[in-house]
Amino acid sequence: MRNPARWAARLGLTAAAVCGPLTGAAHADPATGPAALHAPSALVLTTGHGESSATVTPERAVTLSCAPRAAGTHPNAVAACAELRGADGNLDALESRPGVWCTREYDPVVVRVDGVWQGQYVSHERTFANECVKNSYGASLFTF
Amino acid sequence: MRNPARWAARLGLTAAAVCGPLTGAAHADPATGPAALHAPSALVLTTGHGESSATVTPERAVTLSCAPRAAGTHPNAVAACAELRGADGNLDALESRPGVWCTREYDPVVVRVDGVWQGQYVSHERTFANECVKNSYGASLFTF
Repeated sequence: MRNPARWAARLGLTAAAVCGPLTGAAHADPATGPAALHAPSALVLTTGHGESSATVTPERAVTLSCAPRAAGTHPNAVAACAELRGADGNLDALESRPGVWCTREYDPVVVRVDGVWQGQYVSHERTFANECVKNSYGASLFTF
Repeated sequence: MRNPARWAARLGLTAAAVCGPLTGAAHADPATGPAALHAPSALVLTTGHGESSATVTPERAVTLSCAPRAAGTHPNAVAACAELRGADGNLDALESRPGVWCTREYDPVVVRVDGVWQGQYVSHERTFANECVKNSYGASLFTF
């Protein structure tokens, strides 16, 4: 977990159906029929200092809605949604930008994402060695 | 669980610190000092047909941010935030409006709330016997 390049891989939810990766796509459900034209994508992103959201106090929290259009209190909702879609919703695909240098200080920061992505419940968290390392990943999604 | 007036009382998260009721208030944390002037309150509300979010596909999802001001894709964010604050963040305090009549048909609907309320992680869900019963609770919070 002290490796900033690895997901903390701590899914906060117990039920398997709620724990799908952030890659779910809208699909027809036999019980409810075809999915709506815009499967809902509405998230809350939080960040706090510590190794796990189980022990930290969330210091900042923003909303991010990506369907039918980008919106929310995220400071750059349009870019954040584009980044998520570009990664096919897979946060693991967000990599550290080249040319960013950070100290090796261990002052962990945890980012947590809860809500719905393309019609599927999601709950993820990712822990970084420090704030600089967090901000070096992706372009705008984690910068709030 | 077939009693619509009862919380499903199914907290989706495992860690105790993430499972506090929706009544958390901003407080000073010994590790991080006094809370910010506006402790974050950012939520995702979802609804779907079924008894539990572990098995349903979320049909609708909206964001609701209540600090520093009401915002989000919730169709009535101002009223929804006022309702939450009026209940001191306690969803259990939302009662069925008098004079609303619903059939006793059992076609359960689950409402789920995830995110941060006044600086504390929250994850709750509440199951109602049918859509009419859901809409009879509170004024605007569940109407999205």
